[in-house]
Amino acid sequence: MKLIVKPLDLESGGKFIVVLNREDAEEIGVSGFSRVKLSKDNRDIIAIVNLAVESIPRGYVGVYNEVKSYLGLKGGEEVYVEAMGFPASVYHIRNRLGGRKLTYEEIYEIVKDVVEGRLSEVEIAAFIISLHTFGLDLDEATSLSLAMVETGSRLDLKKPLIVDKHSIGGVPGDKTSLLVVPIIAASGLTIPKSSSRAITSAAGTADRAESIMPVNLRIDEVREVVEKTNGCIVWGGALDLAPADDIFIRVEHPLSIDPLLLPSIMSKKKAVGANLLVIDIPTGRGTKVKTIGEADLLAKDFIELGRRLGIKVKCAITYGEQPIGYTIGPALEAWEALNVLMGRSKPHDLIDKAAHIAGILLEMSGKASNNGGRELALKILESGRAEEKLREIISAQGGNPKITPEDIALGSQRYTIYSRRSGVVLWIDNSLIVEAARLAGAPRDKGAGIMLHKKIGDKVSKGEPLVTIYAERASMLDKPIKIFEETPAIGVGERMDMLIHKIEERPVTKKTFILER
Amino acid sequence: MKLIVKPLDLESGGKFIVVLNREDAEEIGVSGFSRVKLSKDNRDIIAIVNLAVESIPRGYVGVYNEVKSYLGLKGGEEVYVEAMGFPASVYHIRNRLGGRKLTYEEIYEIVKDVVEGRLSEVEIAAFIISLHTFGLDLDEATSLSLAMVETGSRLDLKKPLIVDKHSIGGVPGDKTSLLVVPIIAASGLTIPKSSSRAITSAAGTADRAESIMPVNLRIDEVREVVEKTNGCIVWGGALDLAPADDIFIRVEHPLSIDPLLLPSIMSKKKAVGANLLVIDIPTGRGTKVKTIGEADLLAKDFIELGRRLGIKVKCAITYGEQPIGYTIGPALEAWEALNVLMGRSKPHDLIDKAAHIAGILLEMSGKASNNGGRELALKILESGRAEEKLREIISAQGGNPKITPEDIALGSQRYTIYSRRSGVVLWIDNSLIVEAARLAGAPRDKGAGIMLHKKIGDKVSKGEPLVTIYAERASMLDKPIKIFEETPAIGVGERMDMLIHKIEERPVTKKTFILER
Repeated sequence: MKLIVKPLDLESGGKFIVVLNREDAEEIGVSGFSRVKLSKDNRDIIAIVNLAVESIPRGYVGVYNEVKSYLGLKGGEEVYVEAMGFPASVYHIRNRLGGRKLTYEEIYEIVKDVVEGRLSEVEIAAFIISLHTFGLDLDEATSLSLAMVETGSRLDLKKPLIVDKHSIGGVPGDKTSLLVVPIIAASGLTIPKSSSRAITSAAGTADRAESIMPVNLRIDEVREVVEKTNGCIVWGGALDLAPADDIFIRVEHPLSIDPLLLPSIMSKKKAVGANLLVIDIPTGRGTKVKTIGEADLLAKDFIELGRRLGIKVKCAITYGEQPIGYTIGPALEAWEALNVLMGRSKPHDLIDKAAHIAGILLEMSGKASNNGGRELALKILESGRAEEKLREIISAQGGNPKITPEDIALGSQRYTIYSRRSGVVLWIDNSLIVEAARLAGAPRDKGAGIMLHKKIGDKVSKGEPLVTIYAERASMLDKPIKIFEETPAIGVGERMDMLIHKIEERPVTKKTFILER
Repeated sequence: MKLIVKPLDLESGGKFIVVLNREDAEEIGVSGFSRVKLSKDNRDIIAIVNLAVESIPRGYVGVYNEVKSYLGLKGGEEVYVEAMGFPASVYHIRNRLGGRKLTYEEIYEIVKDVVEGRLSEVEIAAFIISLHTFGLDLDEATSLSLAMVETGSRLDLKKPLIVDKHSIGGVPGDKTSLLVVPIIAASGLTIPKSSSRAITSAAGTADRAESIMPVNLRIDEVREVVEKTNGCIVWGGALDLAPADDIFIRVEHPLSIDPLLLPSIMSKKKAVGANLLVIDIPTGRGTKVKTIGEADLLAKDFIELGRRLGIKVKCAITYGEQPIGYTIGPALEAWEALNVLMGRSKPHDLIDKAAHIAGILLEMSGKASNNGGRELALKILESGRAEEKLREIISAQGGNPKITPEDIALGSQRYTIYSRRSGVVLWIDNSLIVEAARLAGAPRDKGAGIMLHKKIGDKVSKGEPLVTIYAERASMLDKPIKIFEETPAIGVGERMDMLIHKIEERPVTKKTFILER
């Protein structure tokens, strides 16, 4: 059927989408989410069908920008539109919805079609949900990891030994990578650290690092930095390492599910060529993984998936029931990490965690003896070699190698919450801290966030400061202040209260969802 | 944040959708599929967020037609846009994705939000898929049925006894309702038959009936027809009986899943006020339900769901491995049914099936003695009282009560396929017959379809006609002819071939999906 092009001046985010009048669609023999082929001159594409009743009159086809520019269409000209079958990947997804496991070839076809914009949101959602509800076994996780690598770019460092670390996320204030990367690179090992931006948190490692250096590097620039300094801390998003993942995340986020955690992380490690890898699994109330038993099972899967991908994996199950260090928010965290590297402050938990994780890599690589890793890591940190290395990396990434904590712009609008009672800090509510930091503007406003003055176990007197909210604009203080005034985020007392919460009628159960990679 | 309205001239199908520039969305604190509140003067609405990078510049908000007309917006004016939480129904859906069962109140909130356009396609898909993968138990099926009734219109006939029949669909050529309704109405019982149009088949009962009378009646018109004649055969789609179902179907179709079969059917029966109901479950190869065991289990669920909804249900498990009667396609089927009612032809299977189903209703209602139902039904049919009743219904619905089979326009373009061998008809491939009928133009072209000349068990000589394709346009004959030439749709021989099919490499498994209500 010949139809007249009506440009919609709307982008679909990489998919080819057209809008047909319901009656034309019926005549062509397609319904919503079906496919049509559009042909003009010698070019054609297959597009996903949306339906309209009024906005697209009969005889017209509404085209999204992607379709318009691919075929070089102009409003008012004619294209030929005919019905097409679903791509094979849709049949694979339908089978997966029936509980069938998929082969590598089938998963590859799905991932390829996801990356190339051939699947609708509903079909991608169906794939993700089928993985979530039936679970994905290690065969499928392996296939997915490999398919995500195959459909993206690779770093190709031409080094025999490449190490890496990754946290599955979920604990606020976790600036560990900003210490581990320079420690490891200073030891002589190669660590090409690609990291993500915050999705549901107050800061991702890429957001943190961006407060002290550029992180949006191209893949060839990353190669250069790593060849020069043994390390880097860059945003993975610009590297196209596993582009399917960004598309999957778009659907996972509103549904609050994340069945792709393992393949997503491991595909990116495979794409940078890692041989040795430590996975940090923060554990406990207020983190992604609530129990140690669950963390152990997840670790087992990471190790086995690593084995299948040719990556030797060890895991660190770490305590996550309060933020790491004293700061939450991109600039505040970079500021704290730089202070630690320069020996100006020594937050116990942050240094202990970084030394343990770096230590495992030093032991795995043979740089340190068994059980000597943590000690060597601390030595590299305390000697100033890690600071020196970070400054090399900052310089190679195009930043100012002489940067000091004072150069980092922290939010100038501040508000401090004081303790209403005396006692000991019994608990800190991670999700409330994250919510407050985000309401203050983090991660978008780099200087926004939360500074803690006390951690679990610290003595507090009535009237002492507990937390300070940082914001870049005064208006951004109101909501986080309200949060802290309505619900205590830091529990101060002598003994734990026995009642966790009362349920007096059918509750609407809103779980905190942590989607970090 | 104040944003300038940019009308998109695109409708979303009833949802409130706005498109934000990615950076504005970040600043407001929302991501894709989140919700925002749009306020203008004293009105506000909550809309679903889509994101754009280029097509919507910073400072603008793209609005779909629904949003524009609800708020009375004009391009260029300002609206206030702020972040909103997800509706509670989204949290219920997320819990369902985790395998939790839902309460009536939760299901009602979901269905209400579906009908009122408050949920995105991805969220609706997640709900449907969670029902499909975890299954829905009878408590949830009951809740869903009731919620679908509550969110739609009701017929309210003020009669103490209302009977109904429904086929779950899946067998081609099933014009049984065109016989059962007049038989039952002629017996003095009230049968307000609402029916659906074809979704994946060649004709729905509404499509068939439309060849002999108007079926797009308003609910008050239906009430009048039934009060006058005891029966009707109308399109349910215009009655708004369970409007959620049409929205669910949009998502079920591309995914080829139908977890809502039971609630969908039963909600509509509840909405017309049925007390006694026969459900026809066509069974066998080439239908929706492949085995008798499966059919029995489905029947059990229908009966129990009926009990909970206050509807007495009996089921008829019927043979479905070939089309019912000799015709497939809207006009052809109406033509055949009218011939049968007028005593001009007597296709055994069609009459037998209609008499059995009508008979069950006659027995349930006490109009016939135990086991006397089928006989009474045949008597009403053969006496001409059913024909007379159908003509009354046709007249009440605004059609021509004197219509004869000759008045029904069958496709004038015809092509007959002849048998290449002699023998007996061993099997007929339902799905190929449906595919051919649809390729010929059915159900859109009312006169298009297939006429069978032989049924299973019939003797055939080489060169005898097997099927005739009917189309309204000559160009529509090519594809169905090709189908029949490439793959036999009717198996003629002396003995069954032992090989069903060969699998020589990884097959792309495309199952035939039958989504009929």
